[in-house]
Amino acid sequence: MKYRIEKDTMGEVQVPADKYWGAQTERSRNNFKIGPSASMPKEIIEGFAYLKKAAAYANYDLGVLPLEKRDAIAAVCNEILAGKLDDQFPLVIWQTGSGTQSNMNVNEVIANRAQVLKGFQIGEGEQFIKANDDVNKSQSSNDTFPTGMHIAAYKMIVETTIPGVEKLRDTLHAKAVAYKDVVKIGRTHLMDATPLTLGQEISGYAAQLTFGLKALKNTLAHLSEIALGGTAVGTGLNTPEGYDVKVAEYIAKFTNHPFITAENKFEALAAHDAIVETHGALKQLAVSLNKIANDIRMLASGPRSGIGEIHIPENEPGSSIMPGKVNPTQCEALTMVCAQVIGNDMAIAIGGMQGHYELNVFKPLMAANFLQSAHLLGDACISFDEHCAQGIEPNHKRIKELVDNSLMLVTALNTKIGYYKAAEIAQTAHKNGTTLKEEAVRLGYVTPEDFNAWVKPEEMV
Amino acid sequence: MKYRIEKDTMGEVQVPADKYWGAQTERSRNNFKIGPSASMPKEIIEGFAYLKKAAAYANYDLGVLPLEKRDAIAAVCNEILAGKLDDQFPLVIWQTGSGTQSNMNVNEVIANRAQVLKGFQIGEGEQFIKANDDVNKSQSSNDTFPTGMHIAAYKMIVETTIPGVEKLRDTLHAKAVAYKDVVKIGRTHLMDATPLTLGQEISGYAAQLTFGLKALKNTLAHLSEIALGGTAVGTGLNTPEGYDVKVAEYIAKFTNHPFITAENKFEALAAHDAIVETHGALKQLAVSLNKIANDIRMLASGPRSGIGEIHIPENEPGSSIMPGKVNPTQCEALTMVCAQVIGNDMAIAIGGMQGHYELNVFKPLMAANFLQSAHLLGDACISFDEHCAQGIEPNHKRIKELVDNSLMLVTALNTKIGYYKAAEIAQTAHKNGTTLKEEAVRLGYVTPEDFNAWVKPEEMV
Amino acid sequence: MKYRIEKDTMGEVQVPADKYWGAQTERSRNNFKIGPSASMPKEIIEGFAYLKKAAAYANYDLGVLPLEKRDAIAAVCNEILAGKLDDQFPLVIWQTGSGTQSNMNVNEVIANRAQVLKGFQIGEGEQFIKANDDVNKSQSSNDTFPTGMHIAAYKMIVETTIPGVEKLRDTLHAKAVAYKDVVKIGRTHLMDATPLTLGQEISGYAAQLTFGLKALKNTLAHLSEIALGGTAVGTGLNTPEGYDVKVAEYIAKFTNHPFITAENKFEALAAHDAIVETHGALKQLAVSLNKIANDIRMLASGPRSGIGEIHIPENEPGSSIMPGKVNPTQCEALTMVCAQVIGNDMAIAIGGMQGHYELNVFKPLMAANFLQSAHLLGDACISFDEHCAQGIEPNHKRIKELVDNSLMLVTALNTKIGYYKAAEIAQTAHKNGTTLKEEAVRLGYVTPEDFNAWVKPEEMV
Amino acid sequence: MKYRIEKDTMGEVQVPADKYWGAQTERSRNNFKIGPSASMPKEIIEGFAYLKKAAAYANYDLGVLPLEKRDAIAAVCNEILAGKLDDQFPLVIWQTGSGTQSNMNVNEVIANRAQVLKGFQIGEGEQFIKANDDVNKSQSSNDTFPTGMHIAAYKMIVETTIPGVEKLRDTLHAKAVAYKDVVKIGRTHLMDATPLTLGQEISGYAAQLTFGLKALKNTLAHLSEIALGGTAVGTGLNTPEGYDVKVAEYIAKFTNHPFITAENKFEALAAHDAIVETHGALKQLAVSLNKIANDIRMLASGPRSGIGEIHIPENEPGSSIMPGKVNPTQCEALTMVCAQVIGNDMAIAIGGMQGHYELNVFKPLMAANFLQSAHLLGDACISFDEHCAQGIEPNHKRIKELVDNSLMLVTALNTKIGYYKAAEIAQTAHKNGTTLKEEAVRLGYVTPEDFNAWVKPEEMV
Repeated sequence: MKYRIEKDTMGEVQVPADKYWGAQTERSRNNFKIGPSASMPKEIIEGFAYLKKAAAYANYDLGVLPLEKRDAIAAVCNEILAGKLDDQFPLVIWQTGSGTQSNMNVNEVIANRAQVLKGFQIGEGEQFIKANDDVNKSQSSNDTFPTGMHIAAYKMIVETTIPGVEKLRDTLHAKAVAYKDVVKIGRTHLMDATPLTLGQEISGYAAQLTFGLKALKNTLAHLSEIALGGTAVGTGLNTPEGYDVKVAEYIAKFTNHPFITAENKFEALAAHDAIVETHGALKQLAVSLNKIANDIRMLASGPRSGIGEIHIPENEPGSSIMPGKVNPTQCEALTMVCAQVIGNDMAIAIGGMQGHYELNVFKPLMAANFLQSAHLLGDACISFDEHCAQGIEPNHKRIKELVDNSLMLVTALNTKIGYYKAAEIAQTAHKNGTTLKEEAVRLGYVTPEDFNAWVKPEEMV
Repeated sequence: MKYRIEKDTMGEVQVPADKYWGAQTERSRNNFKIGPSASMPKEIIEGFAYLKKAAAYANYDLGVLPLEKRDAIAAVCNEILAGKLDDQFPLVIWQTGSGTQSNMNVNEVIANRAQVLKGFQIGEGEQFIKANDDVNKSQSSNDTFPTGMHIAAYKMIVETTIPGVEKLRDTLHAKAVAYKDVVKIGRTHLMDATPLTLGQEISGYAAQLTFGLKALKNTLAHLSEIALGGTAVGTGLNTPEGYDVKVAEYIAKFTNHPFITAENKFEALAAHDAIVETHGALKQLAVSLNKIANDIRMLASGPRSGIGEIHIPENEPGSSIMPGKVNPTQCEALTMVCAQVIGNDMAIAIGGMQGHYELNVFKPLMAANFLQSAHLLGDACISFDEHCAQGIEPNHKRIKELVDNSLMLVTALNTKIGYYKAAEIAQTAHKNGTTLKEEAVRLGYVTPEDFNAWVKPEEMV
Repeated sequence: MKYRIEKDTMGEVQVPADKYWGAQTERSRNNFKIGPSASMPKEIIEGFAYLKKAAAYANYDLGVLPLEKRDAIAAVCNEILAGKLDDQFPLVIWQTGSGTQSNMNVNEVIANRAQVLKGFQIGEGEQFIKANDDVNKSQSSNDTFPTGMHIAAYKMIVETTIPGVEKLRDTLHAKAVAYKDVVKIGRTHLMDATPLTLGQEISGYAAQLTFGLKALKNTLAHLSEIALGGTAVGTGLNTPEGYDVKVAEYIAKFTNHPFITAENKFEALAAHDAIVETHGALKQLAVSLNKIANDIRMLASGPRSGIGEIHIPENEPGSSIMPGKVNPTQCEALTMVCAQVIGNDMAIAIGGMQGHYELNVFKPLMAANFLQSAHLLGDACISFDEHCAQGIEPNHKRIKELVDNSLMLVTALNTKIGYYKAAEIAQTAHKNGTTLKEEAVRLGYVTPEDFNAWVKPEEMV
Repeated sequence: MKYRIEKDTMGEVQVPADKYWGAQTERSRNNFKIGPSASMPKEIIEGFAYLKKAAAYANYDLGVLPLEKRDAIAAVCNEILAGKLDDQFPLVIWQTGSGTQSNMNVNEVIANRAQVLKGFQIGEGEQFIKANDDVNKSQSSNDTFPTGMHIAAYKMIVETTIPGVEKLRDTLHAKAVAYKDVVKIGRTHLMDATPLTLGQEISGYAAQLTFGLKALKNTLAHLSEIALGGTAVGTGLNTPEGYDVKVAEYIAKFTNHPFITAENKFEALAAHDAIVETHGALKQLAVSLNKIANDIRMLASGPRSGIGEIHIPENEPGSSIMPGKVNPTQCEALTMVCAQVIGNDMAIAIGGMQGHYELNVFKPLMAANFLQSAHLLGDACISFDEHCAQGIEPNHKRIKELVDNSLMLVTALNTKIGYYKAAEIAQTAHKNGTTLKEEAVRLGYVTPEDFNAWVKPEEMV
C-alpha cells in the first residue's frame, strides 16, 4: 500500500495515500483496534457534517472565517451528507471517550478534501483549509461531539422511531375498533377470567404505545439543546460573541429540526442526561412492546394445542425439521429488540453516571447504544406492523367456544346472590366438569330463567 | 397463642385471636414465607385505605352501599391512615403478583375492625360489614392494587422525592451564584484544561437537577391516572354507572392530589408503564446525582494528597484505625442510593415487560422497588444537602495555586499564534517544568507584555 | 428521653441513656436519615460478632490482648449471636460506604456492654474495654466490613440458598422420573411441535438448577477468602505477625465454614469481585427459575381456556371478585423474586465497578443487595417447592387429547417420504381441519397401515 | 438486478441470480428489515460451518448419508471457514428467535454451492444436495443454532478474551513486581490514608484479573456442552443411534476444542444458561477492569493539577482546542467497553429468562451480545496493555512529596500512644498546616527521636 506523511503536534505519521484522513485519525486507527473497524455510527458523522457546516456559516457571519473558506468547508460537508465520503471514517466507538478522534477525523477529511476540490492532490501544497484552525474554529471536541450526538439522536427519534411506533399504534387502534364487539374470555394470572372484547384487549396495547409516544416526545425539548459554543469546558473560550445562538440556528435550518443552544453549557459537556432521559422513554416503549408482542404470540399459539384465538400472518416456513410449522417470528424479532433496548439502557446509565468534572468521557458508547435502540425500535415496529399486526384476525369459532365454556361468567351473579354462593357454583361446576347453569340450578341458587337473564357475556364487557 | 376460626371460599383457617385479619391473609402468611415478614410497604396499605374509603363514598353516592356501612368503612380507613392498625398487615411483597392477598388483608381488617367498633369481639356475631361484598364492593384486586400503587407512588414522589431534590438543587444554585467569580482550573479527561469558575462548575450540577425535576414532573400525568373502576379485567363489571370518575374524585379529595380515572382501564391493569415511566426519571436523577456526588468528593479529596479545591463539612471521625481522618461520607451514601435506584430500574423493567393478557402480576415487586427508590432519593438529597452541600466552601489558596500553575492557559494563545505554536509552548513547559510565559518568550512566539495581556485566567471563563 | 454524654475524637455527643452504642453510632444515626432505620442487615452484624470474637482470640494468642479482655469481648459477641442485643444496631445501609459506622457501632456496643457485664452502669467508670484500642485491635473498618460481608454472604448461600434450590431441584427430578412416560405435545415458539414426555420436559428444569448449583458452588472459593488482617489499606499495618492466618482460622472454627485469609489483601479491600461473582451465579439461578416458573404457570393455565396439561395445588382463593378462581401464586412470587435478583445484580455491578484506589466504598449496598437476593431465592424455592412443585400432577385426559390431535406428528414421516410431502400433508390437514392420517392417505403419500406403523407419538420421544 | 426463482414449502420466491441463498433466506431478508443488514455475527456462521461438516461426517459414519454427499457438504463448509462465502449471509440478528432462518441460510448456501462445485449454474439441474434433507439431516434449527452459538462463544472466549486478559494481567503483575518497593500514599474514600507501595497497589489489580480469569474458566465446562442431537424438542427425533456423541466428537476434532454432547438436551434447547453463566464472568471482568482503568487514569491525572503519581504513555494529541493536552484515552476506551459488557449482561439475562416450553427464542440476541462482549473485552485488554499498561511508570518525585507530607502516617503511633492522642496530633497539624512531627513534639506526646524511629513510611507497608 502507498502512504503519505501527515503531521500533528506529536510528529509524523504514515497515512494511506488515497485516504483523506490525517495524522490523528491514523493514530487512532492504530491505537484502538477494538472490535470491528468503522463502528462509529454513520449518523454521528452526519451530525458532524451538519455542525461543521453550521460552524463555518456562523464563523463567517461573525467575521472570523472568510467566505471562501466557509464555502469550501460547506461543500465537503454536503458531500459527507450525500454519502460520498463514507469510506473516510474508519474509527471505532472504543476510542477516546470525548470522541476527539472522530472530531479530528472529520476535520482532517474536510481539510484534505477541500484541498483536492481546489485542484491539488491529497496532502499536496500549503493547506488552504486547516483542520484545527479553520474547520474546528470556535469548537472543541468537547462541544462538537455532544452536538453531533444530539443531532443524530434527535433525527433518529423523530425520523425513524416515532413514525415506526405511530404506525404500529395506528394499526392496533384500527384493530381495536374493528373487533370492539368480539366478546372473548379474559385472562388474569394466565387463568380464565371474566370476558372482554378483543377490541378492548387490543385497545390496551394501543394505549400503551400512546403513553410511550407521549413520554418520548416529552424528552425532545432536552434533546434539542446543543452544546456547541461551550468549547473546551463550557465557558465558550475562543468563540466570538453570539456564536452559540447563531450556530444553533444554522443547525436548525440545515437539519430542519428545532435545535437551540443549551442554556447551561457546563451541563451539556459534563453530563449527557438528555441521552439518558430520551433513552429512558425508549426503554419504556421496549417494556410495552414486549408485553404486546408476547400477548399476541400467546393468543395466536397453536394451531391445535395452544390458545388460538387470533390468526397472524404466515410469513415463512417455521421449521427446518417440522414440516408445515409456522411461527410468530415477528413477535420474536420484536421481543429480542426489546431485550436489547433494555440492556442498552443500562449501558447508557453506566456511561452517564461516570462523568468527571467538566467532561463525560463515555460519549461514543452512549451515542452508539442510543442510536442502535432508536433505530431498531423504529424498524422493528414497521416490520411487526407490516408482517404481523396488520394481519391479525380473530378466530371467531375458537373465541366463542372458549367464552361460552368459561366458569368465570359466574362473576355476574355476585351482585345477585353474593360472592360465596357464586363461588360454590363455580367450584362445583369445575369439579364436576359441568356448566355453571347446571350447577346454579341444581344448587337451587338461581332459576334457569334468571340465569339466562343474568349471565350474558356480551353484557359483561 | 390463642386462635379463632375464620372462613373463606376454600374453608376454615385458624387465625391469631387478637388480630383483625381473616382467612385469606392467614393463608398468605402461611404460604409465602419469603424474606422478612410484613415487607409489603406501608405506603401501599395507606393507598388502600384511601381507596377503600373513596370506594365506600362512591358506592354510597351511587346507591349501592348504605350510609351506615360507608361510615363504618371510612372510620377504619381513617384509623389505618392514622397508623393505629400498623400491626395488622403482616404480608410480604413476595405473594401473588396481583396483590390480591394484601387487598383481602385490608378488606378483612376493615370488616373485622368495624365489627369491633360496633361493640363486638373480633369474629363475633353476624358480620355487619362483609370483606368481599361491602369493603370490596365495585372493586377487584386487579384495579385496587394498581390504584393503591399509584396513590403511594404519586404521594412519595410529590411529598418526598421532589422536595428533597429541589432543596439540594436550590443549595447548589446558591453555591453557583456565591462562587461565580472564583476562577479555577477546569479538568477534562481528569486532565488539566482551561479555567472556569467554581460557580460555573456547580451551575452544571444545578442544571442537571433542574432537568431531572422537569423530567420527573413530566411523568406525573400518567401516574395520576388510576385503574379503579376497571374491576377484574378492565371492563368495569359489577360497578355502578359513573363509579370510576366519582371514586377518582374522592381519592383526589382525600389525598389532596389530582388523581383522575384512567382513560383506558385495560392498559391500567395489564401494564404498569406509568411506574416504568416515572421510575425512569428517578433513574435519570440517580445518574445525575452520582456524577455530582462523585465530583464533589474528588474536588474535596486530600487533605494533602488529593485535589483539595473545596472543603466539605467534617461530620464524623472517618476511620477506626487512622486517627483524624475525615471522609466524604454523604457522597458515599448518596452514590450507594444511586446504584440502588439504577438496579431497581432494571427490576421494574423486568416486572413491567412480563404482563400476560389482562393482568400484570409483578405489581408488588414494582411497587416496592419504586417506593424504595423514591423514598431513598428524597431522603438522601436532604441528607446530602444538610450535611454536605450547604457546607461546601472553596479552598481559595489551593484553587489559585493550581490555576496559576496550569499549562492549559496556553489555549488563550490559539487565536493569536495558532494551535501548533501554542502546543509547542505547552509541551516545552511541561517537559522542562517551567511556566508557559518563560517558554513563550524563549521560543520567541510572544513578548512578555503580550503574554500578560493575552493570558488571563479570569478572562477565559 | 434520657441521654448520657459519649465522646469521640470530634467531641461530645448525646446518646440515649439506655443504649449501648456510643458517639460514632449516634453521629451516624443523626447524619444519615435515609430510608427506614436499622436497615443494615442483621446478618452483617452477626458477621461482625464472629470476627470481633475471632480477632480477640487471635490478638490474645499473639500476645497483644490480655485473656480477660478477650473473654469479655467474646462474651458480648456471643450475646449478639444469640440475638440478645438486636435493638442496639440502629444504623442504615446508606451510611459511609466503608461501613465504618457499623464497625464502630459493634465496637461501641461491645465495649459498653462489657462494662455492664462487669457490674457498671452504661457509660459509668473507666472503660475496661476500649472500642478502638481493644475491640478494634488489629483491625480497620476497611478489613472488618468486607470480612463481615463475606461471612454473612457465605453463610446465607450455604445455609439458605443452596438448600432451598436443592430441595426444589430434587422435587423436579422426582417429578421428571415419575412422569417419564407421559407422552405430551412439545411446543416451540409457543407453537405445537413434536412430542416429548412430561418427564423429559421437567428434566430440563432440574438440569437447569443442577447447572446453577454447580455455578454457585464454583464461586465459593473466592467468597471464602477474607480481608481481615489487611487493616487500613491492605498492608496489615498494626497487626501482629501471623495474625491474618490465625484470625481466619478462628472465624472458620466459630462459623464452621472453611474461611481462609485472602492471598491479596489489596484486592480484598479495594474490590468486591467475590460478591459480584457469587451474585452472578444467583442471577443465573434467577434466570433459570423465571423460565421454570413461567412454564409451569402456562402448563397449568385454564381451567378451561388455557393449556391445562398439569394441575398445581390450589392454595388460596384467587380473586376478590371472581368466585372460584385459583391462581398460580407461587409462580408469581418466585418470578417476582427473580426480577428482584436480576435488578440487584445490576446494583451490585454498579457498586463493584466504582472502587477508588485502596477502597471500594459501596460495601453496605453490595452486602444488602447480595443478602436480599440469597435470602429471597432460598426462601422462594422452599415456598415454591412445598406449595407448588410437589403438587404438580399431569392432567392425563387433556395431555392425551392434545397430543393425539397434533399436526406435528407429521415429522415422523420426514425420513419416509421427505420434508416437502410431509409439509403438504400437515398444511392440508391444518387448512381442512382434518387429521394427518386422513390427508396422508387422501394425498396418496402413505397407506393407512404405514401411517399407523410410522406415526406413533410414544416412539417419537 | 437479475433474479432466479427458488421454492420452499410456501411457494416461489425471487432470489438475486448470483447469490447462493434460497427461498427461506430471501423471505427473511424481506420480512426483517431491522437495523443494518447482515448483522448476524460471522462467528455464528462459522460455528454453523463446523457443525454442518461434523453432522455430514456423523451421518455418513452412521449410514444415513452417502460419502459423496458428505464430502460435497464438507467442501462448502471449508470454503465458509476460509471466508470465501462471506457475502452469502445477509440476514440480521432480529429474525426468528430460534435462528431458523440463519440455519436455512447456511443449508441453502451449502446446497446451491455444492451444485455449482459439481459443474452446474446456481439453481440449475436437479439438486444434488438438498438443503433440508441432506445438509440439515439429523438436525433442527433448534439444536443447530445453540450448537453454533456455543462453538462461536467458546472459541471467542478461549482464543480472544482469555489471551487478552491474561496479557494485561501479566503486565500488571510485572509492574507489581517492578514497583514493589516504591512507597506511596494510600487513599481510602479518596482521602489520604496510610502508605503502601505502588507494587502492592498494582498487585491488587493483577489479583482481580486472576480471579476473573478463574471465574471465566469455571464456566467453560457448561459452555462446552452442545445441543446437537436434540433436534426439534430435545428428544433426538430423526437422528440415528449414537449420533449426538459422534457429532460432538467431530466438532471437537474440527475446532480443536473439547466439545461434548449435552447430557440433557431439553435444557440445551429451552434454556441458554451456559451463555448467561459465561457472560456473568465477562461482567465480573468488566467490573474489575473498570476499577483498574479508573484508578490508573486518576493516578496519572494532571500534569499539574491532579494526582500525577504515575506516567502513562502519550499516544495522541488530546484536544482539538487545548494545545499540548494528553489524555488517558486507553482508560476511556476500556471503561466504555466495560459499560457495554454490563449492559449486554442485562440483555442476555432478559433473553435467557424468557424461554417458553421446549425452546428459548432469544438465541440470536444472546449470541450477538455475548460475542460482542467477549470480542471487545479481549481486544480492549490488548489495546490497553500495549498502549497504556506496559508504559506505566512511577513519578518518583511526586510520589515522595505526597507520602512525606501525609498526615496519615500518624497511624503508626496508635500502638504507641493510643488512637485518641494520635488523632489529636493529626488534627492539629491539619489545622495549622504543619507536620506531624512538629505537633507530636509540641503536644508533648512523642520525642523527636521516637517520632523518627516510629514513623517510617517504608516500614508501614
